[in-house]
Amino acid sequence: MRRHRVRVDALAEGERTLPGAAAHHLTRVLRARPGQPVAAFDGAGLEAYGTIVAVDADGVRVDLEAPRPAATEPDRAVTLAPALLKGDKLADVVRMATELGVVAVRPVLSRRCDATELSPARLARWRRVAEEAARQCGRARVPEVAEAARLDALVWTGALLVADPFAEATLGDAAADLGGTRDAPPTPVTIVTGPEGGLTPDEVAALVARGGRAVALGRRVLRAETAPVAVAAALLTWDGT
Amino acid sequence: MRRHRVRVDALAEGERTLPGAAAHHLTRVLRARPGQPVAAFDGAGLEAYGTIVAVDADGVRVDLEAPRPAATEPDRAVTLAPALLKGDKLADVVRMATELGVVAVRPVLSRRCDATELSPARLARWRRVAEEAARQCGRARVPEVAEAARLDALVWTGALLVADPFAEATLGDAAADLGGTRDAPPTPVTIVTGPEGGLTPDEVAALVARGGRAVALGRRVLRAETAPVAVAAALLTWDGT
Repeated sequence: MRRHRVRVDALAEGERTLPGAAAHHLTRVLRARPGQPVAAFDGAGLEAYGTIVAVDADGVRVDLEAPRPAATEPDRAVTLAPALLKGDKLADVVRMATELGVVAVRPVLSRRCDATELSPARLARWRRVAEEAARQCGRARVPEVAEAARLDALVWTGALLVADPFAEATLGDAAADLGGTRDAPPTPVTIVTGPEGGLTPDEVAALVARGGRAVALGRRVLRAETAPVAVAAALLTWDGT
Repeated sequence: MRRHRVRVDALAEGERTLPGAAAHHLTRVLRARPGQPVAAFDGAGLEAYGTIVAVDADGVRVDLEAPRPAATEPDRAVTLAPALLKGDKLADVVRMATELGVVAVRPVLSRRCDATELSPARLARWRRVAEEAARQCGRARVPEVAEAARLDALVWTGALLVADPFAEATLGDAAADLGGTRDAPPTPVTIVTGPEGGLTPDEVAALVARGGRAVALGRRVLRAETAPVAVAAALLTWDGT
């Protein structure tokens, strides 16, 4: 029997009644029934297995085991900082990045961005996309989707890579210098990718001056919505964690 | 000035009048004018730089330099063999795979495929998607998009990798055993990815018995349309070729 996955904040061992949205999803979308197995996840990396005890007018009651860190998080913390793109193009980036295992998506505003702002409604939608993708792919952590920020205001922890078609270093070179992912814990890494038309040379130079490293992703020109997914895939599917 | 890119079969040095579709694209879509630079590519890996000589009622005349192999092809020949998916989901896979540099996409029919056939109209559309993506990303080779074939009839040259969440080997392990991509020429590689619900254990075992190697792509469950893109990205953006 497939284990239904449901998000529950503040996970704890024992019986509880699920909040409305989770109960609705379980009963209406997944058609859950008493006795069926469930996996509750808190969005921050914990999960708890359990069983559905009752489904009635009061809601859905579940009995959960003790929460534990989910085994589905990758060893390396990868954050994407893609240039903000027009319309809903970053929705697919958020969805695929979540499946691949990134911890955050932080849209940045750079010189050649066509888009100038990220509306609260769209940001809320992308956050729902991340939550739904996490539920479907078996993650217990929902990646943060941040508000758009100016590229020169980007802050990061660990290493910064900047996708740049003119760079001499390859992604493999940079990953090797970050240390093997079997070290614990590996260096967190943030990757900036540009808009259609790319980052300007000044923008790349400014990030390098702040400690970033420019890397090429191959000899072909990737679309602005493909580049962040490609980097996440390369960094997160390689070592099987 | 940006160099317009146009597909021209049977490239040769010298002046020629472009066929209708290429001429239409240059004049109506790209608004090309005499004197502007052009890059003609043949879809098989050759390209020729040149200049637009005339745009008139007879069509578009170009003067081309000698054709040469395009520098944008990766060193390694990567073929994707994704399970056929319902509707148009593989269109995005074809588009992104083309940008990333694959040489072919060969949809396969496996036990758990919801889709049972690939219509000629849809196949033709995916081939147009590949051609347009090649034009936009600067490739001179248009990946082959093959008709759907039964998984047990799949043939390949070089190495076969089979995406399998239960595999012990990682993609990095497998890539290391294929040899460094700085060898010339590196082993061609074909990667099979399953439908929603995955390949069956029997299907994986049959491919392994035929010489394939099962590899895990990380601990998360990738959607059927994300897995092939992730593998292509990991194999083709790593070494910068």
